[in-house]
Amino acid sequence: MINVLFGAKPDMWAEYEAPLNDAFAKSGLQVDLSVDHAPSEVDYIIYSPAGTVSDFTPFTRCKAVMNLWAGVDSIVGNQTLTQPLCRMVDDSLSRGMVEWVVGHTLRHHLGMDRHILGQDGVWRSEFFPPVAPDRPVTILGIGQLGAACGQALHQLGFPVTGWSRSAMDIPNIRCLQGDAGLQKALTGAEIVILLLPHTPRTENILNAERLALLASGACVINPGRGPLIDDNALLAALDSGQIGHATLDVFRAEPLPADHPFWAQPQVTVTPHIAATTRPETSSGIIADNIKRGEAGEPFLHLVDRTVGY
Amino acid sequence: MINVLFGAKPDMWAEYEAPLNDAFAKSGLQVDLSVDHAPSEVDYIIYSPAGTVSDFTPFTRCKAVMNLWAGVDSIVGNQTLTQPLCRMVDDSLSRGMVEWVVGHTLRHHLGMDRHILGQDGVWRSEFFPPVAPDRPVTILGIGQLGAACGQALHQLGFPVTGWSRSAMDIPNIRCLQGDAGLQKALTGAEIVILLLPHTPRTENILNAERLALLASGACVINPGRGPLIDDNALLAALDSGQIGHATLDVFRAEPLPADHPFWAQPQVTVTPHIAATTRPETSSGIIADNIKRGEAGEPFLHLVDRTVGY
Repeated sequence: MINVLFGAKPDMWAEYEAPLNDAFAKSGLQVDLSVDHAPSEVDYIIYSPAGTVSDFTPFTRCKAVMNLWAGVDSIVGNQTLTQPLCRMVDDSLSRGMVEWVVGHTLRHHLGMDRHILGQDGVWRSEFFPPVAPDRPVTILGIGQLGAACGQALHQLGFPVTGWSRSAMDIPNIRCLQGDAGLQKALTGAEIVILLLPHTPRTENILNAERLALLASGACVINPGRGPLIDDNALLAALDSGQIGHATLDVFRAEPLPADHPFWAQPQVTVTPHIAATTRPETSSGIIADNIKRGEAGEPFLHLVDRTVGY
Repeated sequence: MINVLFGAKPDMWAEYEAPLNDAFAKSGLQVDLSVDHAPSEVDYIIYSPAGTVSDFTPFTRCKAVMNLWAGVDSIVGNQTLTQPLCRMVDDSLSRGMVEWVVGHTLRHHLGMDRHILGQDGVWRSEFFPPVAPDRPVTILGIGQLGAACGQALHQLGFPVTGWSRSAMDIPNIRCLQGDAGLQKALTGAEIVILLLPHTPRTENILNAERLALLASGACVINPGRGPLIDDNALLAALDSGQIGHATLDVFRAEPLPADHPFWAQPQVTVTPHIAATTRPETSSGIIADNIKRGEAGEPFLHLVDRTVGY
């Protein structure tokens, strides 16, 4: 019997218990899934932020911690964690992210808000957007999610530049890296999408100096991590018109407090961390498959490199 | 010398004169482009709705009428028109249509409006849309524009059904035709996109009976032609909740009068006939190429079949 501790946020148990047990049964694994195994008897921990485990020291026989989300910033710095840590890489999560990013990119590209917010009987036909090939888009972070978004935007005709820490080579995306590459990637970009992980090196990566490199009136879309943006610099750039709009899905504090200036700035759209979400049906199967690999002595998929933080 | 009459809407002359002359020069054609040739000396007419030509009888040597738009309903029924009529088929027009259709499909799919219209400090995280593969989309009209939209939606993962009068076979699109096919195409569809031409057979094609076939709360997107929809039936279906939202770009009367009930219905978004527009730079080249074909004795491209109306 394999003991799996559901150590994620307690209110997620109701939606995860059945899909996880179904997935374990389908994988042929003999699993005892519970929210209250004794730590010394736990083989695997299923983890999310705001979960029930913060000290991993007593889990002496635990073979891996399975994170339910793609992002691992709430756990990767935990000094008590010595067990292998796996991220969630879920096609439905990636799909949801692509839909959200492409949808909001087109929303800004087409200037939809002037009509959504302008249903007042006035026929506003004077504005025509350029076509996509004339609208440069830059994605900071071209890992699995960023690259998927880049391909979808390329297929719609947008010229896509992708920036990453280390050199990448991805078809249909102009790939840049390093500090000089970052400056080049941002200069003149009309839509910037943030899909970097949050690490000490990416914190405040979009600061006042870099916001000034974008095309005047550019749009910022952040489905990545809140701390990637210097909030005050963004607010100042919105006030000056250098940034025309920001659609933000992630924040330093979530839920975003009701008195945060982002809510009051008319050129900001706040969305409540919905760009990509793990779905119990698909993620349960992915966790079961990964545990099966571990039990068979195969390497875990999607292991986090804790030296770089993702 | 080839005499080309610019008979389109007079206020378009300023933006078309230079691009047309450039395109004729590039094609090596000796053209005298003017807004006031004597009718009996005109070789080609460039046409748009609200233009300067309504009686084509005196244009006795005219070889073809070149329509600046994709739609020809303002001219196809003109009994004085005996000359060949060519529609505009322009990649940038098709591209603009795909961007508008995909953008508004994703907007409705993702439920964007609840956030765009809800910037009031409330963190609304309870709603998650399905992923695209669980969101059936039906396109009525799968000619060049409809098929292009269908491919783009397929690439994002939507299951796409296309309906047309005559049988079609298009990769990645479930193609249906005829009356039985129309019922099947609409039944259970969650997003319906109208891209049919306006003909006596397509007028009011989306009536009360057919709106009732859609999934409850379905969304209607009309970038095609206003008369495709029975307006009163749509308003009733919006009031009852059978239709959750309608985004309409075309209307029986344009500009849509300020007192039209569509403006006051909160579940309707009116956009001012912007989904696809002809751009002077690209369309001028297409017209020059077509005139060159005519002068060389080759058949014109994009000839309208006036017996079917498009």
